Amino acid sequence: MSKPAIVLLSGGLDSTTTLAIAKDQGFAPYVLSFRYGQRHSVELTAAQRVAEHQGVERHIIADIDLRVFGGSALTDDIEVLKGRTEAEMNEGIPSSYVPARNTIFLSFALAYAEVTGARDIFTGVTAVDYSGYPDCRPEYLAAYETMANLATKSAVEGESPIKVHAPLLRLSKADIIRTGTRLGVDYSLTSSCYDPDDEGRACGQCDTCVLRLKGFTEAGVPDPVRYQGVSA
Amino acid sequence: MSKPAIVLLSGGLDSTTTLAIAKDQGFAPYVLSFRYGQRHSVELTAAQRVAEHQGVERHIIADIDLRVFGGSALTDDIEVLKGRTEAEMNEGIPSSYVPARNTIFLSFALAYAEVTGARDIFTGVTAVDYSGYPDCRPEYLAAYETMANLATKSAVEGESPIKVHAPLLRLSKADIIRTGTRLGVDYSLTSSCYDPDDEGRACGQCDTCVLRLKGFTEAGVPDPVRYQGVSA
Repeated sequence: MSKPAIVLLSGGLDSTTTLAIAKDQGFAPYVLSFRYGQRHSVELTAAQRVAEHQGVERHIIADIDLRVFGGSALTDDIEVLKGRTEAEMNEGIPSSYVPARNTIFLSFALAYAEVTGARDIFTGVTAVDYSGYPDCRPEYLAAYETMANLATKSAVEGESPIKVHAPLLRLSKADIIRTGTRLGVDYSLTSSCYDPDDEGRACGQCDTCVLRLKGFTEAGVPDPVRYQGVSA
Repeated sequence: MSKPAIVLLSGGLDSTTTLAIAKDQGFAPYVLSFRYGQRHSVELTAAQRVAEHQGVERHIIADIDLRVFGGSALTDDIEVLKGRTEAEMNEGIPSSYVPARNTIFLSFALAYAEVTGARDIFTGVTAVDYSGYPDCRPEYLAAYETMANLATKSAVEGESPIKVHAPLLRLSKADIIRTGTRLGVDYSLTSSCYDPDDEGRACGQCDTCVLRLKGFTEAGVPDPVRYQGVSA
């Protein structure tokens, strides 16, 4: 029987690839997504499509209202920046940074792990292409794992330790796409854009679209999602 | 001007005392409570009464659905145990343990700290009277603080570190009540019971009622909340 693992899935390119990696490593995925007041709720639809397509044990969408704090372009009405170069993206903390988001998401994953008996948590964070987020750094993930192993019931009852897997951490976007393509990921099901239109078509100009398109170009694979102003 | 601090407030005895301590130390409290599917939602009413009575900068109630995971007497339909001795309470993990609850609550506090610019987070966890919860241990809180300082924007921008204050950590229930009484806490506004009746009267027999009543007895102070079957 496969070991259970919790996989955080946003429906974007990175977490979709991470789910495929967890499955490839023989884990039975319990998938967790969040409805957190994100402006681009189209990603939840993508998460559902991806989970169904890859086949998972269970997919939970947890409601958490991060809008209650404000403070980010992803949950507020702050304008998403477009047409920025990578150099500009890497100056300081991006406006799309949601305070403590990864910490909150991992904490829910930890709760889910305790309930399912999973000892393994997979996150799609990556530190290569886009290093502006403090909670995507390897030292952060290591500290999270240490904390998690003190936080939980299992810590007291002497089970094997919780492991936080971040298999994309040191991969470029192109390498992520190559890995996922090798594992049979259908990237047409994913959604990465911060500002999709009503039909779910990507803007092609926000930071995440720019990095995604560059990744596909470098990987030598066409990006199968639809972009605004580009006929299908 | 007072320094801002985030204070986690459930409306129970411990967190209410913690809020008074934060104020006494000169902090301007930004108070955070959760609607998390708890069976005893009467505690949120208590939290609102307490916040209003003590005077706070702001009180946010965040919606997070922990019921989505199941797995605890506080969020499920599992029966709350009554009439247990302290020895019985301290055997293993109590059924009222909510998986990763403190980790989730502290993570929201961390997000709120980032948004308000607070560097201080107060939690009412205590490790003396009731040691069954893994996420109430000092080593857990220390690991949380380390993680928090790697997680956040401020970590990158070089601000002063986040500090997690747990002023009750080594106090007995009686000492907590003595401290709060000295600081003018009105304990009639609090609610601790896991199984209050429709009028909000405490059961007097669940673990938290037993510990609360013993604490008041030891402190030599009458417990001003109403108990079921006791005329006012």
